[in-house]
Amino acid sequence: MKLYDLPPSPNARRVRIFIAEKGIDIPMIPVNMMAGENSSDEYLAKNSLGRMPLLELDDGSCIAESMAICRYLDELHPEPPLLGKDTLERALVEMWQRRMEFEFLLPMISIFRHTGEMWKGRITQIPEMAEAEGKNVKARMEWLDKELAGKQFIAGEDYTVADITAQTAFVMGKAALGIRIPDELTNLNEWWARVSSRPTARA
Amino acid sequence: MKLYDLPPSPNARRVRIFIAEKGIDIPMIPVNMMAGENSSDEYLAKNSLGRMPLLELDDGSCIAESMAICRYLDELHPEPPLLGKDTLERALVEMWQRRMEFEFLLPMISIFRHTGEMWKGRITQIPEMAEAEGKNVKARMEWLDKELAGKQFIAGEDYTVADITAQTAFVMGKAALGIRIPDELTNLNEWWARVSSRPTARA
Repeated sequence: MKLYDLPPSPNARRVRIFIAEKGIDIPMIPVNMMAGENSSDEYLAKNSLGRMPLLELDDGSCIAESMAICRYLDELHPEPPLLGKDTLERALVEMWQRRMEFEFLLPMISIFRHTGEMWKGRITQIPEMAEAEGKNVKARMEWLDKELAGKQFIAGEDYTVADITAQTAFVMGKAALGIRIPDELTNLNEWWARVSSRPTARA
Repeated sequence: MKLYDLPPSPNARRVRIFIAEKGIDIPMIPVNMMAGENSSDEYLAKNSLGRMPLLELDDGSCIAESMAICRYLDELHPEPPLLGKDTLERALVEMWQRRMEFEFLLPMISIFRHTGEMWKGRITQIPEMAEAEGKNVKARMEWLDKELAGKQFIAGEDYTVADITAQTAFVMGKAALGIRIPDELTNLNEWWARVSSRPTARA
């Protein structure tokens, strides 16, 4: 088993944090997107969309999409549970994972694509879109701050993949977009301190 | 158990098709979004994002997010399997489900929001965004047509939730956006004929 990795990508980062939290040892192969390595025939045969991360199994099967990779690894290595411990918890972790993805991670990626130098010429950049997404993200931070009242982690008492997705979104916001958690959002800042101090946070 | 439903929503439709394929009987409560029923304190207490579909359990627990609802129902009613039959299949179904969501369903919803009369004044509409998404969707239809060569369904030989997500995307494209599958994409058209003739397609 090996993981084709794109070190700066938030999607790749969430798989790396997931792997680190599970304590699994998987060789990682960095793919140089700027040099077009992911557009080679060899790579496209593994993932026709040319994206990372990608998990290649020993029999040659390839699993793309970060959450698909996490689910696969979770079935092989159920401990510690990062997707919920029973039927209802698993549904609620999935709910929160998707909320973090749709309200934070995808908008952050969209802002990056519509404003970033590296995407110039690769997509139709619409700065107005980035501006609208930025406003949404700010409003959603206030919403998440309220939702975190009395909770340790996004989905409740346990650290889960919902935290991992949110972490990677906020790392991207902070490192690449200048989007920071406002000081007055105390619950969100406390959560951030809690998750970003975990030994796996820089995986 | 009851489902708060938004009849025209593609996300609600995929849960309804999933329920129909499983043969489960769940009372559905249509929520009138245009009349603001989803902004009432009562509804926001169930889902603070004010969205549908939403599954409310008999103990009052509420599960939002269509895929979280599908996963919950799948654990209670494993037959017929719609999320894959073994560990690798489950990962690949999740991969294809997400590809259908990110490459088709979300762009279709985005086009609808950025051009539709009902969203005027509710969000910042950017027609240029809709145009860019429309081009992407067309390119992705050609990609999916190739991917379907020799396959009955999106993830392989079995009908799965990946087909359901793709179906709802194409229904929205056809019914609301004037986006049709080009005649020359034979595999995609054959797939469409296969899934849209299932008894559950109009759930």
